[in-house]
Amino acid sequence: MSELALFAKKSDAADELAPLRSRFVLDDTVYLDGNSLGALPAGVPDRVADVVRRQWGELRIRSWEESGWWTAPERIGDRIAPLVGAAPGQIVVGDSTSVNVFKALVAAIRMADESRDELLVDATTFPTDGYIAESAARLTGRTLRALTPSEVPSALSDRTAAVLLNHVDYRTGRLHDLPSLTAAIHASGALAVWDLCHSAGALPVGLDEHQVDLAVGCTYKYLNGGPGSPAYLYVRRDLQPRFDSPLPGWNSHADPFGMNPSYAPAPGALRGRVGTPDILSMLALEAALEVWDDVSITAVRTKSLALTDFFLTCVSAYTEPGRVESLTPSAHEERGSQVALRCADAGEVMNHLIARGVVGDFRHPDVLRFGFTPLYVGFGEVERAARVLGEVLGEVSA
Amino acid sequence: MSELALFAKKSDAADELAPLRSRFVLDDTVYLDGNSLGALPAGVPDRVADVVRRQWGELRIRSWEESGWWTAPERIGDRIAPLVGAAPGQIVVGDSTSVNVFKALVAAIRMADESRDELLVDATTFPTDGYIAESAARLTGRTLRALTPSEVPSALSDRTAAVLLNHVDYRTGRLHDLPSLTAAIHASGALAVWDLCHSAGALPVGLDEHQVDLAVGCTYKYLNGGPGSPAYLYVRRDLQPRFDSPLPGWNSHADPFGMNPSYAPAPGALRGRVGTPDILSMLALEAALEVWDDVSITAVRTKSLALTDFFLTCVSAYTEPGRVESLTPSAHEERGSQVALRCADAGEVMNHLIARGVVGDFRHPDVLRFGFTPLYVGFGEVERAARVLGEVLGEVSA
Repeated sequence: MSELALFAKKSDAADELAPLRSRFVLDDTVYLDGNSLGALPAGVPDRVADVVRRQWGELRIRSWEESGWWTAPERIGDRIAPLVGAAPGQIVVGDSTSVNVFKALVAAIRMADESRDELLVDATTFPTDGYIAESAARLTGRTLRALTPSEVPSALSDRTAAVLLNHVDYRTGRLHDLPSLTAAIHASGALAVWDLCHSAGALPVGLDEHQVDLAVGCTYKYLNGGPGSPAYLYVRRDLQPRFDSPLPGWNSHADPFGMNPSYAPAPGALRGRVGTPDILSMLALEAALEVWDDVSITAVRTKSLALTDFFLTCVSAYTEPGRVESLTPSAHEERGSQVALRCADAGEVMNHLIARGVVGDFRHPDVLRFGFTPLYVGFGEVERAARVLGEVLGEVSA
Repeated sequence: MSELALFAKKSDAADELAPLRSRFVLDDTVYLDGNSLGALPAGVPDRVADVVRRQWGELRIRSWEESGWWTAPERIGDRIAPLVGAAPGQIVVGDSTSVNVFKALVAAIRMADESRDELLVDATTFPTDGYIAESAARLTGRTLRALTPSEVPSALSDRTAAVLLNHVDYRTGRLHDLPSLTAAIHASGALAVWDLCHSAGALPVGLDEHQVDLAVGCTYKYLNGGPGSPAYLYVRRDLQPRFDSPLPGWNSHADPFGMNPSYAPAPGALRGRVGTPDILSMLALEAALEVWDDVSITAVRTKSLALTDFFLTCVSAYTEPGRVESLTPSAHEERGSQVALRCADAGEVMNHLIARGVVGDFRHPDVLRFGFTPLYVGFGEVERAARVLGEVLGEVSA
């Protein structure tokens, strides 16, 4: 057994999170794509079957009350809250990430002083955030400026209304400094809106601690909620009375069944709701989140860094120098839970990897992306993934 | 056997849609709340189980392509199309009705001449449409006027940008004249946006035939898609190149995986997509729609009117004169697929009805609402529902 394989074996034996793997449906594939679609938690199928057959099929309309359907968005929001460092009552689940970015940005602009006419957006962000930011700016008569997170502090001024940033870059895996960027944004008098898609469930976020204003995130990556499971919206408690939604659907009304023709917003996080929640997807997510009971996000972060460190070490050992280049920062404080490798013929290489049981993904034009979900990825798998990558790279000419 | 019971028996025996009842999960309850949440189609549970266990659990990320997840919004839209009289390629499924009303209204305003500064909305509509219309008007700098559908023709002018109307009033069950109202709106140079929540699946809509501009609808009422199943958006083919979405998420990009920082809209109905679709809810809907194979919407309408006629007859026979008053028009051309009865103590009466196996719903402050889904409601049930209502009304003092 090689030294690296031996190290992996010891690390797996010492891994306090290792027992969680049995709570997921996995096979002998090395699944390093949980940052795109998390694996299926074992408790989900039976729960979904119960929601369909009994709650919908037998109780039907009564389930809105008796099965807790109506209150699911805020109940599941409270379940996500501790994972992102938020006290209860500040998160609602529902709609897609894009729709939540829209709500958050328009609401943030409306909270800022009217004289502030600029919206700043992370130019390296997942594109949808930029598209939606452009729409929010257009509809509110603001100017949009796209720039890298490192350029943000010097771009802030008394013209800045709000800033939308990604916590972890979806492409490179770079972790941005949420505490210091939020503080800089606040010092300029603007509001900070964070996209947590690639950080929630992989590392501590500390929304309350760092006084983030608004945040959004998806639930189908490290939270394993299932394909297209609903996203969430965080509105800091003291800002909730000023949260003025551009999507004031009846679910956010103070008296939704009063059927009042004039709108009056509900108090609290409920104000972020819009229309009827998609119950099947939402309750699958609720079941998926049970995996997190008693899991420490600090322990998750520790293992995540150990996994990505080990992967980088193995890649160095198993591939010819210069064949791939890591786009992911080596400093822990700048790294999310993924490793992105720039590689010639990345698309072809990824196809070979998948054919040999190592699943990551390819990001146009030349990036191999590997996500490490600490709840179910082990060190032995990491060693195997890097070893297979070395073999494939040896066969595919650069 | 009473004359009415005999009539019911004969009608059920002659009902060509009666065999469809076996394709739903039903019990001995008379379920007259399918206009709130449709009953469970029998094919849904196994389909959902397959989506969860195999497509998500085993294929995982590969299912976006291999299981057709990515193209589900437009594929399922095409399945809904014939039910609302639309040719393929004009409907996408996704998001809630409220979110789709927002897309449709902002897009309609942008299609209208810039000088048109008024948005008209049905004052009797389900409230969420009015709230969202107010937001759309505010964000686009238009004035919103709420008025009844009958007031619309005289309110139209060269200031009208768009009009949002409900096809069937959620409270009274009144069917509005879509062809003539659409023609009047067009004659004024404005765009017609219709909400089909209470008509799609219950009666012919004829979107293409009547040249409706945009339409939205939910899928959990007469389409039986399940709790909070995704809504849909219709954009008439010739208007699609001008559909300028206020929610331009990455799913509506011409090259969604190009990860281009600048937005370029996809051609066609895809332009109405936003973020990642909620696959579990969406594929449950797809399975639910299979019930409609070979069902004629004309036959559905014929049965629907026969059911509501018969219910009104039975109610007259079984209740004391004046104890309830129908808010639903007696003229067929003005009636949807529900009957709303104004009734003192309506809340208490409905509780008694439900306790005795007749499920309708109560709408504040004094309405008993009964929805008739022709696919699974029979004439015998209608007679029983009215008979039980008569008994309850005899016991609950007005």
